[in-house]
Amino acid sequence: MTETTSSTGPRADGRAYDQLREVRFTRNWLDSAEGSVLVEFGKTRVLVAASVTEGVPRWRKGSGLGWVTSEYAMLPRATNTRNDRESIKGRVGGRTHEISRLIGRSLRAVIDYKALGENTIVLDCDVLQADGGTRTASITGAYVALSDAVSWLRDRNALAGEPLTNSVSAISVGVVDGIPMLDLAYSEDSVADTDMNVVLSGTGDFIEVQGTAEGAPFDRNTLNTLLDLATDGCTTLKELQQAALAD
Amino acid sequence: MTETTSSTGPRADGRAYDQLREVRFTRNWLDSAEGSVLVEFGKTRVLVAASVTEGVPRWRKGSGLGWVTSEYAMLPRATNTRNDRESIKGRVGGRTHEISRLIGRSLRAVIDYKALGENTIVLDCDVLQADGGTRTASITGAYVALSDAVSWLRDRNALAGEPLTNSVSAISVGVVDGIPMLDLAYSEDSVADTDMNVVLSGTGDFIEVQGTAEGAPFDRNTLNTLLDLATDGCTTLKELQQAALAD
Amino acid sequence: MTETTSSTGPRADGRAYDQLREVRFTRNWLDSAEGSVLVEFGKTRVLVAASVTEGVPRWRKGSGLGWVTSEYAMLPRATNTRNDRESIKGRVGGRTHEISRLIGRSLRAVIDYKALGENTIVLDCDVLQADGGTRTASITGAYVALSDAVSWLRDRNALAGEPLTNSVSAISVGVVDGIPMLDLAYSEDSVADTDMNVVLSGTGDFIEVQGTAEGAPFDRNTLNTLLDLATDGCTTLKELQQAALAD
Amino acid sequence: MTETTSSTGPRADGRAYDQLREVRFTRNWLDSAEGSVLVEFGKTRVLVAASVTEGVPRWRKGSGLGWVTSEYAMLPRATNTRNDRESIKGRVGGRTHEISRLIGRSLRAVIDYKALGENTIVLDCDVLQADGGTRTASITGAYVALSDAVSWLRDRNALAGEPLTNSVSAISVGVVDGIPMLDLAYSEDSVADTDMNVVLSGTGDFIEVQGTAEGAPFDRNTLNTLLDLATDGCTTLKELQQAALAD
Amino acid sequence: MTETTSSTGPRADGRAYDQLREVRFTRNWLDSAEGSVLVEFGKTRVLVAASVTEGVPRWRKGSGLGWVTSEYAMLPRATNTRNDRESIKGRVGGRTHEISRLIGRSLRAVIDYKALGENTIVLDCDVLQADGGTRTASITGAYVALSDAVSWLRDRNALAGEPLTNSVSAISVGVVDGIPMLDLAYSEDSVADTDMNVVLSGTGDFIEVQGTAEGAPFDRNTLNTLLDLATDGCTTLKELQQAALAD
Amino acid sequence: MTETTSSTGPRADGRAYDQLREVRFTRNWLDSAEGSVLVEFGKTRVLVAASVTEGVPRWRKGSGLGWVTSEYAMLPRATNTRNDRESIKGRVGGRTHEISRLIGRSLRAVIDYKALGENTIVLDCDVLQADGGTRTASITGAYVALSDAVSWLRDRNALAGEPLTNSVSAISVGVVDGIPMLDLAYSEDSVADTDMNVVLSGTGDFIEVQGTAEGAPFDRNTLNTLLDLATDGCTTLKELQQAALAD
Repeated sequence: MTETTSSTGPRADGRAYDQLREVRFTRNWLDSAEGSVLVEFGKTRVLVAASVTEGVPRWRKGSGLGWVTSEYAMLPRATNTRNDRESIKGRVGGRTHEISRLIGRSLRAVIDYKALGENTIVLDCDVLQADGGTRTASITGAYVALSDAVSWLRDRNALAGEPLTNSVSAISVGVVDGIPMLDLAYSEDSVADTDMNVVLSGTGDFIEVQGTAEGAPFDRNTLNTLLDLATDGCTTLKELQQAALAD
Repeated sequence: MTETTSSTGPRADGRAYDQLREVRFTRNWLDSAEGSVLVEFGKTRVLVAASVTEGVPRWRKGSGLGWVTSEYAMLPRATNTRNDRESIKGRVGGRTHEISRLIGRSLRAVIDYKALGENTIVLDCDVLQADGGTRTASITGAYVALSDAVSWLRDRNALAGEPLTNSVSAISVGVVDGIPMLDLAYSEDSVADTDMNVVLSGTGDFIEVQGTAEGAPFDRNTLNTLLDLATDGCTTLKELQQAALAD
Repeated sequence: MTETTSSTGPRADGRAYDQLREVRFTRNWLDSAEGSVLVEFGKTRVLVAASVTEGVPRWRKGSGLGWVTSEYAMLPRATNTRNDRESIKGRVGGRTHEISRLIGRSLRAVIDYKALGENTIVLDCDVLQADGGTRTASITGAYVALSDAVSWLRDRNALAGEPLTNSVSAISVGVVDGIPMLDLAYSEDSVADTDMNVVLSGTGDFIEVQGTAEGAPFDRNTLNTLLDLATDGCTTLKELQQAALAD
Repeated sequence: MTETTSSTGPRADGRAYDQLREVRFTRNWLDSAEGSVLVEFGKTRVLVAASVTEGVPRWRKGSGLGWVTSEYAMLPRATNTRNDRESIKGRVGGRTHEISRLIGRSLRAVIDYKALGENTIVLDCDVLQADGGTRTASITGAYVALSDAVSWLRDRNALAGEPLTNSVSAISVGVVDGIPMLDLAYSEDSVADTDMNVVLSGTGDFIEVQGTAEGAPFDRNTLNTLLDLATDGCTTLKELQQAALAD
Repeated sequence: MTETTSSTGPRADGRAYDQLREVRFTRNWLDSAEGSVLVEFGKTRVLVAASVTEGVPRWRKGSGLGWVTSEYAMLPRATNTRNDRESIKGRVGGRTHEISRLIGRSLRAVIDYKALGENTIVLDCDVLQADGGTRTASITGAYVALSDAVSWLRDRNALAGEPLTNSVSAISVGVVDGIPMLDLAYSEDSVADTDMNVVLSGTGDFIEVQGTAEGAPFDRNTLNTLLDLATDGCTTLKELQQAALAD
Repeated sequence: MTETTSSTGPRADGRAYDQLREVRFTRNWLDSAEGSVLVEFGKTRVLVAASVTEGVPRWRKGSGLGWVTSEYAMLPRATNTRNDRESIKGRVGGRTHEISRLIGRSLRAVIDYKALGENTIVLDCDVLQADGGTRTASITGAYVALSDAVSWLRDRNALAGEPLTNSVSAISVGVVDGIPMLDLAYSEDSVADTDMNVVLSGTGDFIEVQGTAEGAPFDRNTLNTLLDLATDGCTTLKELQQAALAD
């Protein structure tokens, strides 16, 4: 399930400024998970596993409502140089916490808890290789794994309704050397003046907008241009998700 | 240093939808810190201490560049019901990490590291009482404490230039019962559909935009209205900061 | 609620050897805590919050007895130079543990658990600024916050009797340059040969005596002089507590 | 790089008692690691990354000797049901520690530290999917990644000699329902009476023998049969490693 | 309860290659433990305490089955130079974990859980002085303490049958300077080429075999010689255990 | 090295109210520690090891001054029922911290750092069996081990003078059923109204006084009676220490 990449654009990898990297979804990469996908945005590879368990956390018991959560992590050599393991450091870093929370919030935005019934779905997003955009690839892939996990529950008549109210995808945008562009690779992200991650619903509304001035503060026009780029990118991602799920 | 609040508006506390809560800055609340302020946004009270130390973290030594960082925390009974201490749980939670990082990034956006020289300024933002907007009060107050700490360095001829390139302030906006409003109190924040924190430079550009759909995803028009509200709110906060620093 | 300080005595801050620093109690410093006080012994400022919860820890359930406990901590810049946060270090230090335990024991000494019923009161003592005597200020202030929390329970008919059997206050005494003195400020404490903390009941009996030879061991006469000083100091503190609670 | 599996044998997956599962090595699975391999023993899949850094740990500096170490971990959904992350539990479990140490020892047994020079190679073995034999697959794959990392150093003239003194491979053997068999899948391992992991050098000598009676203690004859099976299995693994490295 | 040691053999302490160090069991070294023994293998001294509690861990409740587990640790100055405490480091090291697990597995191999009933026995093995062979002394001593704890339960009619199905003892063997030898002291162990720990049942079958090539890999003949040495050593240990328990 | 105990007194173990339990010092209990003693106060048994290292902690380097510190811990089954290990809980408890600090302070009170030179002595006090008075037995035994460690340094000409300025011993006193008594056993301590630990120098001055009202607050007369009892007890302990060191 891929988008073809021409190699004649102005960016280092030949892309046009408004072009996504090659996106692939390999569903059912794991044999026993209720949903799983290896999602690739160019060289960025994230293995997403959806684990279904009957029941919900203690604070939610007896409510009739389900729960969806997520954990994000990186393998130590996902990056150019090796990072120490958080298990060995004995604590989860701020960045990991932040991204795990973002992914969970993004998926919960398209879940009807009542329809899910008292079931819990955990989305584990483990970055096997990182080349920028690991959080947006995680969210985009997690939607696919979540869909498969919901189907698994549906096949077992374990749902109280249709829990997925919408689809969700995410993409990064940023300003590099003064030029707004879509889906930043690591080499672009690391020198960007502005970096923004946008999570969109399948109907084109915003679930999350996180923009940061890495260099100089940015103005309203730049913000608008970036939001336009992201909206178009997510429209494409949504189609690729649908195609992958139709396979 | 306060903004007067009329009590005839439509909100629970009598504010208009585009009105800030009463904002106070009490500078030099601590006797020995190089900069300190007790900042209040209504009932939200944050004690910010700026600590200056000569030298920078190891990874930055010899670069000639300074460093600014921040730590955010809440006292256990800052909130309506008591929360366990993170020191006793033995780890810092995801929310704490996330806000600490946000405050640090926001202040670094207005710092010229070269002008700061190899000095480190740590901004400790401790929430004594929480009634919504603790992160935006922290950022807004931290700018005041940072300014005082920079003055302290200037008085000792310990700077290589003028490190503050701009001012910075922050405010929350959100949609409650379908109505966009400014500076949410906890009772509003806890039922908001959309929640956004905006950090602006003194010249009105964006340093950080973080919008989250707590309920239904939001559209572009709503986003625009919220950004307008936030921009106006930060303009007022900037004036209040200037007045406080002029005292 | 303060004791006036004359400035003509022989100590650095003008006090007589047997004179307390200015003591202030600001009750209800927090809006939502069941009891709270900002207690000041000179520049030492401790925010004490009393949190009431129905029920008791698991090991005490069904006993009909209540529970009172305390946690003490310091903000990172309460002191002259910044200390790392215990939450970030991932563990509570020995000194913090020791003082938390001392405060809890001191307050439990004046509590009738049966009269308290199966309620728990947690006293959080957070040092906002430290200038010596933080543990004695904490105990002395915690009694005031505890009284208010007990009143809160009484107003709700949630008590099985009158749980406060006595009042409690605490003061430090020490020998500096060979001279026994009362209520040591940090500049005195840091050079003291002998350092003693004394916790007294409202009827003048000992709840806790902790004396340490920081320099040379001390003899019985010195011990007796210090106990006399402390007893007088606690008598004054008791009156100030009563006045504060009468407001 | 695989061994073909016939499906007519007596075991659940059709193997003969002395037959390995299908073994695959996919070298250079990662773009930036100095050596990497996705090693598969049937459904067991381990991603091994070899990271080279100049220099050695502090306690070894100036010795002229290199260092090789390993860390093993499992993704949370590598198994049939999800396990909590060790990073979130805040500590590494006993089993993880034990296997990490075993892998490190096994590889160090074939390293000439002097020839390696003051370089460090870390072998990260992350189990993406677990179906028994994860530690033996890790060791067998780690040898391949280590070889590639050594070649990477050789290509840069960064070696003081030829550090690989031998090859190393590992396999599990066990007694299931009274029958000794090779390379246990999880369904076999979980009901085995005796479980043994054997690490062999390329010249057929023992680097590590770890046999455990899960049920009844085992006698010397059984031990001998198991060692024979393991020796034959490792001979095949050695050939597969050589073929993979020759590609 | 000792084995006499002649001092004329070829080893540093005068032992023959196949000779144990002096072995002593001092039962009931503790006044309140249900079973306890100070076990000595030469200068190696381990205090083993067996603690019996009614009931089993949560995951085993209602099964009718008992549980036996073990924890191993070393005092900081058990060794020639002081080691930091694991409690202060905040985590248990890999070696400690590994040995705790080995001891637990070894004892569980001779336990009939059904006969034990829903009782838990914890064997704490604390090394007071370490001179090699601490894990084998622990296992050998733990059997004695376990026997006493079982007797304690039997005396109270708290057993559902006879839980000890066999005895268990353990010994180290190794190759030093090319010579296979029994029961290595620290000075021998630290220079051994091959190091093996063998756990045997009272009927001479293997419960655990753990052999490691510290230097060059070892061949099958060496392995056989070492297993013979260990088998003879454990036979002697079994007799010494019986004698101790008969006292 | 013992004090004989008559068994005709009024206490549960036949002691008079002002009588110590049988006190024993077994010096050199460990083979390799620079000083070590097994100290027994009745059934309370503490193994103290003194470890000497050249050099001092970083913050003290180059000062010409030595350092003495202590760590206290209990084996899990030192008590009537088993306690979890602090290493496994991952943190040191408040009581452990408090006692470690007390022991360290008490010994440092009799040390001339300059005479010690830049050497560090760590006193590890591990409670093998606890029957009340573990902290006072630890201090009293630690003085003996410290003396031996100082002698070890003296024998190697590694001292800059005579570092021991005095001896130190410690004893508990308390009020049980209204009767002041010396050296409380656990059965007495657990029901005491007042509990006091007193650390005395060899010349009879106070190094530490820690008195706690476990039940009702105590008056000045009681305090005086307890201090008299403790002073006499420590005088006897001092003689027993001298006798032990003279052996």
